[in-house]
Amino acid sequence: MAVKMEQMYEGKAKKVFATDDPGLCIVSYKDDATAFDGKKKGTIADKGEINNRVTNHLMKLLSEQGIPTHFVEELSARETLVKRVTIVPLEVIVRNIAAGSLSKRLGLPEGTKMGATVLEFCYKDDALGDPMVNEYHIAAMGWASAEELETIAAYAFKINEALSLYLKEVNIELIDFKLEFGRLSDGTLVLADEISPDTCRFWDSKTREKLDKDRFRRDMDDIEGAYREILKRLIGQ
Amino acid sequence: MAVKMEQMYEGKAKKVFATDDPGLCIVSYKDDATAFDGKKKGTIADKGEINNRVTNHLMKLLSEQGIPTHFVEELSARETLVKRVTIVPLEVIVRNIAAGSLSKRLGLPEGTKMGATVLEFCYKDDALGDPMVNEYHIAAMGWASAEELETIAAYAFKINEALSLYLKEVNIELIDFKLEFGRLSDGTLVLADEISPDTCRFWDSKTREKLDKDRFRRDMDDIEGAYREILKRLIGQ
Repeated sequence: MAVKMEQMYEGKAKKVFATDDPGLCIVSYKDDATAFDGKKKGTIADKGEINNRVTNHLMKLLSEQGIPTHFVEELSARETLVKRVTIVPLEVIVRNIAAGSLSKRLGLPEGTKMGATVLEFCYKDDALGDPMVNEYHIAAMGWASAEELETIAAYAFKINEALSLYLKEVNIELIDFKLEFGRLSDGTLVLADEISPDTCRFWDSKTREKLDKDRFRRDMDDIEGAYREILKRLIGQ
Repeated sequence: MAVKMEQMYEGKAKKVFATDDPGLCIVSYKDDATAFDGKKKGTIADKGEINNRVTNHLMKLLSEQGIPTHFVEELSARETLVKRVTIVPLEVIVRNIAAGSLSKRLGLPEGTKMGATVLEFCYKDDALGDPMVNEYHIAAMGWASAEELETIAAYAFKINEALSLYLKEVNIELIDFKLEFGRLSDGTLVLADEISPDTCRFWDSKTREKLDKDRFRRDMDDIEGAYREILKRLIGQ
């Protein structure tokens, strides 16, 4: 059992702690919520616990379908043991239905079905506002190799298929989501970060009600209820 | 000889006229200059004539190197006969050195040499501010087929090599430039639009003085002199 040691990093929604094993970290999920590059701040009750449990549930599902992930073991309601990675500094965004920044960028009404699944990369840099970049920027800046980018794209599409199918069974439509990947010490790429209502747009398949962080971004009511509903549909609790 | 008929289109820097041949148009270059999605407006004396002659000179050069273009014949100082095309609604941007919007987007000081040539696509839509898009957006929206996009990318890199080499001989560094492509009635892709100080960043190789539309964008002096200098270096007049 890995022993929790000093905090290595505190992000907007999670803290990461070293352990006595150099290949392992502990992630601790917070209730803090931010939006619009940190300009909007708040807390969502129990979000940390829900996102921890939802993420681990989905990471296990993806792992069974052949996607390597950083997940090792859920330690407690908020804490999970994960493999230590160096994060590839890209937000990998998969979009099935137009919403959010894509709707704005292309002038497409939210809810428009895209003609094909859209993959986007954003450079993870708060000061620059996480700008959208393409494969040429990534190559020129050395953020990932061409092979890594190919692997990331293939994983992203496979994850989209697996999650969309799985969520459909519990009447959730996967509108879009953001992934992050990391490199293990030997260079192997694994899915890292989280998969939760913070990082996905989940709509009720029938009512198209939003069950994700857009409720927080857009000052809608019952944010906590939406997060709890996702936990309930996925894990039955 | 094609006979000029009704005006089909007036853009920010050019007018296009039909001719009595349905496969041909006449482009007429204006002295009007705009920047920042049309928010800044002005005129640059003789710009129309200079851009017409510079464009035709470079289109002929590229044609000799195997790039199909819309160019047919220079008719007068401002007017050129071109093949009629349906424009692919993409700005195809090639960047060798960071400048302009890329410098802002990635926080790179202007003049930074990129690790590799960067290709960008923007969707031509003034109301949306010509947003940057990627190959997945283009496929999902049907703006170009995957084969067309591959052809466009290959042409863009070949054009960059040819122009960079040619301009180097007259002490001009090709920082970046914007291309547009069009489809002939049989679907053949050809280089269209213009290649001029309006659409390229040209820096003097030694002094790094700007010899392009950035002088207009940034309220610098002797804009006309810069355009005339490009004409002089390329055509010797």
